Amino acid sequence: MTELHLKCLVPVSDNSGFTIYNLPYGIFKAKNKKASVGVAIGDIVLDMAALYERGIFSACLDKNIFATDSLNDFMAMEKSVHKAVRSNLQAWVTGDIPGWHIAQAGIDWWPMHAVDMLMPFRVAGYTDFYSGMYHAENVGKMFRPSSPPLLANWKHMPVAYHGRSSSVIVSGTPVHRPVGQYLNENGHVVFGPTQKLDYEIELAYVIGKPSALGSSVSVEEAPEHIFGCVLLNDISARDIQRWEYQPLGPFLGKNFATAISPWVVTMEALQPFMVKGCEQDVPVLPYLKDDHKFIPDIHLEMQIVTSSGEKATTGKVRSSEVYWSITQQIAHHTVNGCNLETGDILATGTISGKEEISWGSLLERTFDGKQSISIGAHERAYLENGDTMIFSGIAENGVLRVGFGEVVTNILPAKKQ
Amino acid sequence: MTELHLKCLVPVSDNSGFTIYNLPYGIFKAKNKKASVGVAIGDIVLDMAALYERGIFSACLDKNIFATDSLNDFMAMEKSVHKAVRSNLQAWVTGDIPGWHIAQAGIDWWPMHAVDMLMPFRVAGYTDFYSGMYHAENVGKMFRPSSPPLLANWKHMPVAYHGRSSSVIVSGTPVHRPVGQYLNENGHVVFGPTQKLDYEIELAYVIGKPSALGSSVSVEEAPEHIFGCVLLNDISARDIQRWEYQPLGPFLGKNFATAISPWVVTMEALQPFMVKGCEQDVPVLPYLKDDHKFIPDIHLEMQIVTSSGEKATTGKVRSSEVYWSITQQIAHHTVNGCNLETGDILATGTISGKEEISWGSLLERTFDGKQSISIGAHERAYLENGDTMIFSGIAENGVLRVGFGEVVTNILPAKKQ
Repeated sequence: MTELHLKCLVPVSDNSGFTIYNLPYGIFKAKNKKASVGVAIGDIVLDMAALYERGIFSACLDKNIFATDSLNDFMAMEKSVHKAVRSNLQAWVTGDIPGWHIAQAGIDWWPMHAVDMLMPFRVAGYTDFYSGMYHAENVGKMFRPSSPPLLANWKHMPVAYHGRSSSVIVSGTPVHRPVGQYLNENGHVVFGPTQKLDYEIELAYVIGKPSALGSSVSVEEAPEHIFGCVLLNDISARDIQRWEYQPLGPFLGKNFATAISPWVVTMEALQPFMVKGCEQDVPVLPYLKDDHKFIPDIHLEMQIVTSSGEKATTGKVRSSEVYWSITQQIAHHTVNGCNLETGDILATGTISGKEEISWGSLLERTFDGKQSISIGAHERAYLENGDTMIFSGIAENGVLRVGFGEVVTNILPAKKQ
Repeated sequence: MTELHLKCLVPVSDNSGFTIYNLPYGIFKAKNKKASVGVAIGDIVLDMAALYERGIFSACLDKNIFATDSLNDFMAMEKSVHKAVRSNLQAWVTGDIPGWHIAQAGIDWWPMHAVDMLMPFRVAGYTDFYSGMYHAENVGKMFRPSSPPLLANWKHMPVAYHGRSSSVIVSGTPVHRPVGQYLNENGHVVFGPTQKLDYEIELAYVIGKPSALGSSVSVEEAPEHIFGCVLLNDISARDIQRWEYQPLGPFLGKNFATAISPWVVTMEALQPFMVKGCEQDVPVLPYLKDDHKFIPDIHLEMQIVTSSGEKATTGKVRSSEVYWSITQQIAHHTVNGCNLETGDILATGTISGKEEISWGSLLERTFDGKQSISIGAHERAYLENGDTMIFSGIAENGVLRVGFGEVVTNILPAKKQ
């Protein structure tokens, strides 16, 4: 680990996830200033467009790719460029490249509380996998009680569906309770605000380098295409989903809003936290063989805060509790020639562990509303209006800390029809 | 019909679908010239960017929105602008606006055979509905033989799933036979080129004006958001699809390629061909009530041409054979607040009629390969390497003709793994 024990000139508190080993990318907007690419460190946001102008990246970039309102162009570049920019930035905040002492607040950096974080990139495609085994089992038991919980295909391929890109939102964007049709307790079709609004704890990989239509990307080639990760809350309306999902999968039960973190943590930053994930106990086809399974171990946590300010952690799970790796998912997604685009997000699907507290949705935690969870003096089967979800993620190994920050989503009442 | 009996100065043969009443939009590229917006009429392509420079649209456009390689910016404009541009163009080709006599080949227009047609617009989201009732019944009988062919939700909502946008291709783009995993006849998981490559006859609506996240678009408001239509061939690998699709719907069985026509026919051009479609015999919820069901009646035809040049029509169906209208589909898609984006395509799903020749896929025509279709001296259960699909569509009512041209897709052998 050549990066270890870097001496950062920017103050970073011990409990911050935005260390010099992280350096996540986002799009920020300060007052009276155009949106541009920022990097979080400690409690500040570095303005990468301003740092470019100071010549810090002159060895690896020939134009100011940071003076824009999305990460797409930067993400599309080669890994070697991403690595060089990271090195230069680390060198600058340690003083190896001189200049930090003349950096100015309001030009080169901004206090984090003084800026708005926007959508970090334009989402191209959104693919949601179903790679959490305990989640798939939990849901299978509930939705298909008379069949084996895992369907026959589940251990042969990373099952997935295409989600909706237009409604991917950044942390801080409130969501109106969606309306739709579903079956009531008597089995009649009714229409109204969902009664079963839920979250899903997921991690999502963001594609940088695209691939060509008609070509596949192997497990070995896949890392070249992954720019980084975001937290993803796949907000779901269970009653709508249940009534609509046969035979073509989820649609209105999920496409009203999917919330992501404003900070994209790079694969370089996650490298020290890679683990093997769940053991694969059914042999896979050669194109899915992955000897170096590539799964970051991130502590994910969902809290619900009521409108009166009471708070409880309702889900706490590690991102390594998945059966399929991102490299396997990419190999599968492209084996038929489907092309990847810059800005694609490939999500894990809900991650659940073995223990109840580690189940990544209220559907699982409350057995589809049959039990409730206490939040202070309140009980919750599903989300209520005024509730706020706070979803956070941090990787730590005793030496390094790399955090995603929070995905904060407030539930507003349904709009009047 | 104020438009009737316009006298067109451009020669248009009697069997052309590119009449003065059509004027479909596309993106064309002539040699040594940048791609720009074109309009088809007769056997020529009008260069809209050049016509703008001649001042023909000065009353309705204040910048040259046609000097670009996608229709998105133009499609996003208000219907009133689309209508004004159409009127001005019709006035110019009838001589009401002077200038046709000085129009020059190679500047204002190009012979259609001398230009390449590119993707007409950047696809935002791709939603595929399942609105062909006979198709849904035919597939239900095959895939779920022990259950009623239409699932319980089918007549209560236009069932749909999200498709893959990255692999939407324009006519003329060849497709390699996709590889993937599927079950062989003994029920074992195998890997290789699909043995069941198929087409699906569909019509797709293209969204112009976007809608806001969190807002719904009613049946009455929907027409404002529809720019036009394309033909869509949802190329499918049935063996891959069948093994993967439970429980989250189609993925690799479809996302390798979806072919569309290069010409987008506007809703204004289709207006004279609107019919009611199939009767809806189950009452729908108020948000899906559609008193003016909005379904164009287009003659759709699929031909297969073998590599030795033999040809047969394998499917022939009218686009009005759908249960749900596009206005109902939009109302459903957005009822939960899901937003529409410019460049979204909303496809009908496979359209089949009652008679076998009107079934819109080989899956249906050959009973999943159990029977075969003759193409000259050849027999086909599914598509073979070297086959070319030619999908065409034309609306005609005895007075007017409005055509889509062809979607031509050649099947190449699977790429070596």
